[in-house]
Amino acid sequence: MAMLENIETPKDLKKLNTQDLVNLAQEIRQFILENVTLTGGHLASNLGVVEMTLALHYVYNSPVDKIIWDVGHQSYTHKILTSRKEQFSTLRQFGGLSGFPKRKESIHDIFETGHSSTSISAALGMAKARDLRKEDYHVIAVIGDGALTGGMAMEALNDAGRINSKMTIILNDNEMSIAPNVGALAAYLSRIRSNPRYKWFKKVVEQFLRKIPLAGGWLADKTEKIKNSFKYLLVPGVLFEELGFTYIGPVDGHDLPMLLRILNRVKQINGPALVHVVTQKGKGYPFSESNPAQYHGVPPFDIENGEEAKRREHASFSQTLGIHLTDLALSNPEIVAITAAMPDGTGLSCFQKKHPNRFFDVGIAEQHAVTFAAGLAVNGMRPVVAIYSTFLQRAYDQILHDVCRQNLPVIFAVDRAGLVGEDGDTHQGIFDISYLRHIPNLILMAPKNTEEMKYMLDYSLLMDGPVAIRYPKNSTAEDLPSSPLNNLKWEILIKGTDIVILAVGSMVETALQTEEILRKQGIRPTVINARIIKPLDYETLDQLIETHFKLWITMEDNIVEGGFGSSINEYAVIRNIGIRIKNIGVPNIFVEHGTIKELKESLHLNADSIAMQIIYETIGKETCFAEF
Amino acid sequence: MAMLENIETPKDLKKLNTQDLVNLAQEIRQFILENVTLTGGHLASNLGVVEMTLALHYVYNSPVDKIIWDVGHQSYTHKILTSRKEQFSTLRQFGGLSGFPKRKESIHDIFETGHSSTSISAALGMAKARDLRKEDYHVIAVIGDGALTGGMAMEALNDAGRINSKMTIILNDNEMSIAPNVGALAAYLSRIRSNPRYKWFKKVVEQFLRKIPLAGGWLADKTEKIKNSFKYLLVPGVLFEELGFTYIGPVDGHDLPMLLRILNRVKQINGPALVHVVTQKGKGYPFSESNPAQYHGVPPFDIENGEEAKRREHASFSQTLGIHLTDLALSNPEIVAITAAMPDGTGLSCFQKKHPNRFFDVGIAEQHAVTFAAGLAVNGMRPVVAIYSTFLQRAYDQILHDVCRQNLPVIFAVDRAGLVGEDGDTHQGIFDISYLRHIPNLILMAPKNTEEMKYMLDYSLLMDGPVAIRYPKNSTAEDLPSSPLNNLKWEILIKGTDIVILAVGSMVETALQTEEILRKQGIRPTVINARIIKPLDYETLDQLIETHFKLWITMEDNIVEGGFGSSINEYAVIRNIGIRIKNIGVPNIFVEHGTIKELKESLHLNADSIAMQIIYETIGKETCFAEF
Repeated sequence: MAMLENIETPKDLKKLNTQDLVNLAQEIRQFILENVTLTGGHLASNLGVVEMTLALHYVYNSPVDKIIWDVGHQSYTHKILTSRKEQFSTLRQFGGLSGFPKRKESIHDIFETGHSSTSISAALGMAKARDLRKEDYHVIAVIGDGALTGGMAMEALNDAGRINSKMTIILNDNEMSIAPNVGALAAYLSRIRSNPRYKWFKKVVEQFLRKIPLAGGWLADKTEKIKNSFKYLLVPGVLFEELGFTYIGPVDGHDLPMLLRILNRVKQINGPALVHVVTQKGKGYPFSESNPAQYHGVPPFDIENGEEAKRREHASFSQTLGIHLTDLALSNPEIVAITAAMPDGTGLSCFQKKHPNRFFDVGIAEQHAVTFAAGLAVNGMRPVVAIYSTFLQRAYDQILHDVCRQNLPVIFAVDRAGLVGEDGDTHQGIFDISYLRHIPNLILMAPKNTEEMKYMLDYSLLMDGPVAIRYPKNSTAEDLPSSPLNNLKWEILIKGTDIVILAVGSMVETALQTEEILRKQGIRPTVINARIIKPLDYETLDQLIETHFKLWITMEDNIVEGGFGSSINEYAVIRNIGIRIKNIGVPNIFVEHGTIKELKESLHLNADSIAMQIIYETIGKETCFAEF
Repeated sequence: MAMLENIETPKDLKKLNTQDLVNLAQEIRQFILENVTLTGGHLASNLGVVEMTLALHYVYNSPVDKIIWDVGHQSYTHKILTSRKEQFSTLRQFGGLSGFPKRKESIHDIFETGHSSTSISAALGMAKARDLRKEDYHVIAVIGDGALTGGMAMEALNDAGRINSKMTIILNDNEMSIAPNVGALAAYLSRIRSNPRYKWFKKVVEQFLRKIPLAGGWLADKTEKIKNSFKYLLVPGVLFEELGFTYIGPVDGHDLPMLLRILNRVKQINGPALVHVVTQKGKGYPFSESNPAQYHGVPPFDIENGEEAKRREHASFSQTLGIHLTDLALSNPEIVAITAAMPDGTGLSCFQKKHPNRFFDVGIAEQHAVTFAAGLAVNGMRPVVAIYSTFLQRAYDQILHDVCRQNLPVIFAVDRAGLVGEDGDTHQGIFDISYLRHIPNLILMAPKNTEEMKYMLDYSLLMDGPVAIRYPKNSTAEDLPSSPLNNLKWEILIKGTDIVILAVGSMVETALQTEEILRKQGIRPTVINARIIKPLDYETLDQLIETHFKLWITMEDNIVEGGFGSSINEYAVIRNIGIRIKNIGVPNIFVEHGTIKELKESLHLNADSIAMQIIYETIGKETCFAEF
């Protein structure tokens, strides 16, 4: 790592020549590989943008110039070049470097990302602010072809074409989001790539570049003419040209000398420009090159054979969803499955194989996914929409306005609910109970384990309105038996006295662990699997009023505000129960990265902490601290 | 109305000849005008689509064929043609016809709309369901050029181009959403319209149509050839062609014979087709033709001179926002204002006039609007984003992920919060407290009147993080004095004993009315203007525990679940106050149309009902019913 050793900030790059940069690219690739093999992380996307990131930091002047990384999981090279290589071994670990841009980590991380398709809007805002403040710098959004199909990216393209501020979009076209991309835009980009023009493009661009003298002033005067020649040269990008962008490309994203020359010219274009850069996801590591989807996000793995160091013991909820839904669809021709660019992550790829006609990957387009499902439901199908809790936030309005308001039988499989761990604050699924449970008509469930999830799916398919089933990343309580649902009632797991714990989803396991600790202290709470979050099981609740008047504990892996506990409070107010309640859940903060275990401990959501809180509430302060 | 008299269902249309239809169009236009002048409603958009709607119902066979009306406020002709003309005088009135498509009203209303840009997703879902069930009918989405720029419409276009199911999009291009359209796509459509091709298009199409024999079988065989000739003919729509659509247009949307001929051919195109129809918003009524934005949605008015029958007495909250923000921006160069296609509705048009460089109408693009504001804030501006409560639902993820997670100083002016009245269930602003108050970092306020709103705006601009100010459609409590905010504390309006009413926003006025009624019964509650919804005013609350131990009433024009009352319950649980609480708010249903007064009465949110509930809670059942 002879070159990398001497790079502390992007300024250090400027001393290098092109060949040095090419060598540095190889060192960085090796550095990323060696680190991610130990820490886990987003591998393939980062290997794909090494040269592009180097070129951007070489040509532009961060942090004066602003570079925004859409989605942000591809920012490792950026982090390495901006004074964070020493901390790189702490990547995605509790208290360590985030896997995404973070403003508090570096002044070079100007805008935080995580969810897809935000960068063009943000870049346009920054460019506009710059113009209003009469400042002078460049604003660059780096966005993948997958993210480009997200609706808000299109909204921003539409607006940028009108506002006409100077800004540059780097379209990182690797033909993938996490899975291979879908949709007409992807097909369009593919046509551009396969255009014969691409073959001779390098030559043409070189001629073109030779013809233009370097002086910026001259260029500025001739903007219109240049724009037109670009247009003429680059007919493939007519779609972007029609939206008001100067389109340049496609450019080979691993050809550093070419990237440098192109970007140096692009700097001088006034108004919005779009550079179409073609990269290979997973570039430079044979295993990830041949299977980029599998190496999108990885746990620690063996660098020699590419095998994962850790394997899951139980079938995850995602896998269970995929397998069970595939089975159900064999006998029920009305079932269709929808994902937003996550066929693997949601476990639906087996459904896709078995029932290709009834499987829909709509791309990164959660809003469309939900209303598309509404359309399917209106005409007699039974759509199951599987989307991660955090990404489903994008479709809040469509769930409310299109599905629930019309009371349509759409099933939402809300994956990665609760704490998700290493991806951190942009990905935690800690809001879904709060944004879903207040929506009229929607039934909201959370299984304690994968078996119960199957029964919930079975039961949901019998219902005539919308249902959301939320479940966490990791399997929980797999040793507990479950039985088919015949109604929307809760499950009493342990019968105790005085105190009741009402636990939701992954917290059922924690509730049982808590009960074990409490039992040793002579406290015998009733433990209930509150598997139906909405509507509440009023019958059971009404019985509890009669029998458990000391303390009611609610437990959820969602924020307390507006969550499950909040609904129990509302019930208590309506019934005027006069019983002490304690809401346990995620506090009202954005929760950073770490293992789920570490996060639960730091948020006092582990059994030990919760038991201590309950003892404190019941026996009193002195006893509590004496015991622990 | 000789023609209209005989039209009960679309079947009756089929007996008419083209000239009859032309005459019928005039009668319908007159019918709409005469009715809307009395009921109020969406005028201009409906006058613009009379011929198009007739043509659709003439050529297609609803309800077998499915017609989806994007936004839905332009569905009056559709309603008139589908057995609802007798009820038309009840339009938008409590218990009467809805101003939007409603499944319970008619089998011809196949998909309910209200929010923009949903129709293509829904149509695609229906078309796909049809294919899977091996059924045979047409699916048509009618969408305006304004709605087309909404992100989810673009997501759907992208997906439709890939799925390649037979479906038709009617692009109703009137150059307007509510205000004139903005953005690169609008410019693109304008270039198509002004293309010389448009001038000779009619002639070319007629030639083309002559050349094709009528037999469907022949057409089906030659689909590819026809598609190519369409493509060749119609280069203007290359953007849509690139996305996989067969583009036909532009067509004059008021030329009925031409529309019929085009649609008859379009029926026979396999795969997705887009028909670009140019219409004039407000067509046929001189006042609305010359000022379609003003006649977009109207109260009852004088048909002779176009003047509104009712005038507002007080400056509305929207007007106050616009005027005050315009003033503030004179001395604060960092203030910028953003709207999503609602410069008039949000009151920002005066800001636009005074500070055109700092005003941004981004089009129907709420998601982009919010993240664009985040970008502006990162680079030192103070953006104010004014969006209706119901439409801001679209940007839930962007508010949470882009603004609040980064703790950026963006101010959300949440207009039309609470019950909005005649627009009904798709437009009620009854969810925003529930979807906003659980978001970390966000400060949420609600003024009791317009003066207090000004002070809230002043104070928000001093803060260094995100703030949302929610306010209703109609002005309230204008006779109450307000004073500048120096902190986030509540305002005690009336000091009473034992009972406290904590009221939010428009409910402050109701709370005072309630207090008046209660006083006559000898009940003297304290009334508090809980103007800061989040964070709660803990100091005041802690004092109330000491002094008011009989009953706490929360009052909000939001659903109870997860709302303001719910946050008071959470506080009560944390503090273990042991005081009886009653949450008054909108029940967990979608609330239909009617005047705000009627709706409040039917939901028991008026002072009489609330007073009765409080008396019931305090004095007891017998007394209560004896008194009333």
